[in-house]
Amino acid sequence: MTANIRVTIWNEYRHERRSEEVAKIYPEGIHGTLAKALSEKGFTVRTATLDEPEHGLTEEVLENTDVMIWWGHMAHGEVKDEIVNKVHQRVLDGMGLVVLHSGHFSKIFKKLLGTDCDLKWRESNDKERIWVVAPNHPITEGIGDYIELEREEMYGEPFGIPEPETLVFVSWFTGGEVFRSGCCYTRGQGKIFYFRPGHETLPTYHNREIQQVIGNAVNWANPTATRKLIRGNTPSLEK
Amino acid sequence: MTANIRVTIWNEYRHERRSEEVAKIYPEGIHGTLAKALSEKGFTVRTATLDEPEHGLTEEVLENTDVMIWWGHMAHGEVKDEIVNKVHQRVLDGMGLVVLHSGHFSKIFKKLLGTDCDLKWRESNDKERIWVVAPNHPITEGIGDYIELEREEMYGEPFGIPEPETLVFVSWFTGGEVFRSGCCYTRGQGKIFYFRPGHETLPTYHNREIQQVIGNAVNWANPTATRKLIRGNTPSLEK
Amino acid sequence: MTANIRVTIWNEYRHERRSEEVAKIYPEGIHGTLAKALSEKGFTVRTATLDEPEHGLTEEVLENTDVMIWWGHMAHGEVKDEIVNKVHQRVLDGMGLVVLHSGHFSKIFKKLLGTDCDLKWRESNDKERIWVVAPNHPITEGIGDYIELEREEMYGEPFGIPEPETLVFVSWFTGGEVFRSGCCYTRGQGKIFYFRPGHETLPTYHNREIQQVIGNAVNWANPTATRKLIRGNTPSLEK
Amino acid sequence: MTANIRVTIWNEYRHERRSEEVAKIYPEGIHGTLAKALSEKGFTVRTATLDEPEHGLTEEVLENTDVMIWWGHMAHGEVKDEIVNKVHQRVLDGMGLVVLHSGHFSKIFKKLLGTDCDLKWRESNDKERIWVVAPNHPITEGIGDYIELEREEMYGEPFGIPEPETLVFVSWFTGGEVFRSGCCYTRGQGKIFYFRPGHETLPTYHNREIQQVIGNAVNWANPTATRKLIRGNTPSLEK
Repeated sequence: MTANIRVTIWNEYRHERRSEEVAKIYPEGIHGTLAKALSEKGFTVRTATLDEPEHGLTEEVLENTDVMIWWGHMAHGEVKDEIVNKVHQRVLDGMGLVVLHSGHFSKIFKKLLGTDCDLKWRESNDKERIWVVAPNHPITEGIGDYIELEREEMYGEPFGIPEPETLVFVSWFTGGEVFRSGCCYTRGQGKIFYFRPGHETLPTYHNREIQQVIGNAVNWANPTATRKLIRGNTPSLEK
Repeated sequence: MTANIRVTIWNEYRHERRSEEVAKIYPEGIHGTLAKALSEKGFTVRTATLDEPEHGLTEEVLENTDVMIWWGHMAHGEVKDEIVNKVHQRVLDGMGLVVLHSGHFSKIFKKLLGTDCDLKWRESNDKERIWVVAPNHPITEGIGDYIELEREEMYGEPFGIPEPETLVFVSWFTGGEVFRSGCCYTRGQGKIFYFRPGHETLPTYHNREIQQVIGNAVNWANPTATRKLIRGNTPSLEK
Repeated sequence: MTANIRVTIWNEYRHERRSEEVAKIYPEGIHGTLAKALSEKGFTVRTATLDEPEHGLTEEVLENTDVMIWWGHMAHGEVKDEIVNKVHQRVLDGMGLVVLHSGHFSKIFKKLLGTDCDLKWRESNDKERIWVVAPNHPITEGIGDYIELEREEMYGEPFGIPEPETLVFVSWFTGGEVFRSGCCYTRGQGKIFYFRPGHETLPTYHNREIQQVIGNAVNWANPTATRKLIRGNTPSLEK
Repeated sequence: MTANIRVTIWNEYRHERRSEEVAKIYPEGIHGTLAKALSEKGFTVRTATLDEPEHGLTEEVLENTDVMIWWGHMAHGEVKDEIVNKVHQRVLDGMGLVVLHSGHFSKIFKKLLGTDCDLKWRESNDKERIWVVAPNHPITEGIGDYIELEREEMYGEPFGIPEPETLVFVSWFTGGEVFRSGCCYTRGQGKIFYFRPGHETLPTYHNREIQQVIGNAVNWANPTATRKLIRGNTPSLEK
């Protein structure tokens, strides 16, 4: 099944080129690490980054993407509205979208959710424990009771999102906070999954369980029954 | 309770000034008819229209509005993004919003919902029957099994909205269609209610039951427990 | 995929044996008609009926069922609580359940939903039009804008159910009513779909589109990521 | 508003009579402590306990209760099904229900939710921090970012409940777990709130913030727009 799913991993790709610390962890970019992991799972993967023409998201790329993954952080404002609008339309038409970590503040996520998506945060020595609260959900397949990350940036409530259609994960942090870390939405015909972990200075995306969740999310978000909708002026069905 | 709720009724107010047919039904504008009805219910009402400076929605007005009602149709595109952004922020901060009929295509509604809000429609001789599907919901107070409107514009599914948090009404039309006519959402701290009926060439807003629903919706959307949120960089709670 | 899904079709099977009118339409029982249709789609199908020992739902059958379909009407009260409890537990453990038509009043449906599941009804000459309101949902795959049934029993709102997790279909009836005809729920690890049409005196289950929806529902309800849950007294994870 | 709300506090009232440790904390029973707190807030309060005739829940009491509070633990099995059925019907007819702590395993809660309501637990020295995740919800009125309880029994996920209609609170525990601690549901015309804290050996119900939440929940669950529903065989609305 996964073999036929065409995934585009979009990454801002700035931290990795500017910070030696980050480059050591992700020498080929966060997108490179994720591309390798998802290719090994059998997905058809391509990548795109902010500084490519059209941010790498040409119409041809968009039309040939079933599920997009989005990581951004320091340069959300540089993503052109015109491209955001195209991605938005593709989601409404059925493309899946998996938004990672600091992508909570991306233009595309805020445009789809309608809220400010703000939260608490702390770069410190917190341990994170990501608990499964929807144990039958396909996104949790292969994951135990929880995923433990020895060190992660903290995100805390109240997270400025609409109530998730399904809440899949809730995180615990050493410092005393909780966070709704795995959230499902539908917008138009597209399925959206937000997944919290993944600070750029930490090796989170090398973690096998995190990769497993992202792969599960791609499978879940893959469009299955999309269609051309009949809208506009329509005649009566009764004589 | 209603006496202390400050309502701003926003109306595009173009059809009434351009069409004799519409002016006969709403000589003081749709906003005028609604203002009279809501004032009689004890709300503190003001109105605002598209062609006033800042569309009548100055910061002073916005700050002193608990619940806003929105009717627009032919000139959605003329509403300035800058004003839409301010209304959006006020909703996130807790202001209630009641969106009526063709307001489904307004910038503010689409921005809050994140979808295209598209639908089927037909101007014809359909009868509409608006059924209560959430019989304990405060927005249905005083309404029987259904509201019957002898003639209304048809709106039909699939309506391009996120799944409502609560679906309150579903409409039946003579021509054979159904529509999710009363939909509740929360965005940030604000409560939003979409209510379908109200084509400008028909006397729908003179109907006592329709006025009752709109009044109920204002009461429901009135903010009760809003607060200043604590976000951003926060220290650990554990030593 | 469907080949590996083991479906048990449970039917009360009383109307067909007592009424010539019904027997003409379903000579091998409603379960027989559905079994043929689902077998042709590639599912592994067995059937069970009320008057068999243990209503045909032995532990061996239950343990080897991925998705159960339930049709009952005149004899809900004769279904033993002991069997209902076993089916209930199987759903909580992950078995899918597709409840059809008058099954809305079955013990198992009411036990899973927690409400009275009551509604309006009328045996008459109503036409039914079942509209898709969740156009990307896998249960709607292969279905157009709506399914039209020339004649069906009417069911009307307010339907006494909890708000569906996803509302998939809404019905229109000639007589003026609407009904939430396709409703998704999760209970424990099990997925539940209620689908309205299927009065015993009408050939609804011979309809190809109705069969398509039921097949889609079986695919959707098939458990994917169920697990043994860790509950009870658990030691601290922190030293 | 609160003055007219008639609250019945139901308490198992066994721990307090059998354990000196518990009796010291709640000399007049958990119901006594809660009755005092809610009376001071202006509610009209009565109490009922397991060992009274009909568990104190006569038809006269039920008919004159707007919101019921439920605490039980060691003797869930002794609550008569006949009484549970009556309370269940009252909820469907509109009575609010606030279920506390170990009441998650009560017959009435499981009957309304349809699931096993199971969870992890630990009696230890955990600190609990109950975070607000729905900051505009009336049940959080007057509460800051979180409530901190120096010591409480731990409850952990996965909690065997249907997805809440609104998730209001999420708890953090020192030992490393999280829990969905404040959950809203609608069943029939009744509103239900589950609130986690309140182990019998700890003074939780003397805490002013916990009392505030329970009072808020009573206000929220108070029925507002209940009605006699029209169901059963109904004639066509069209000629």
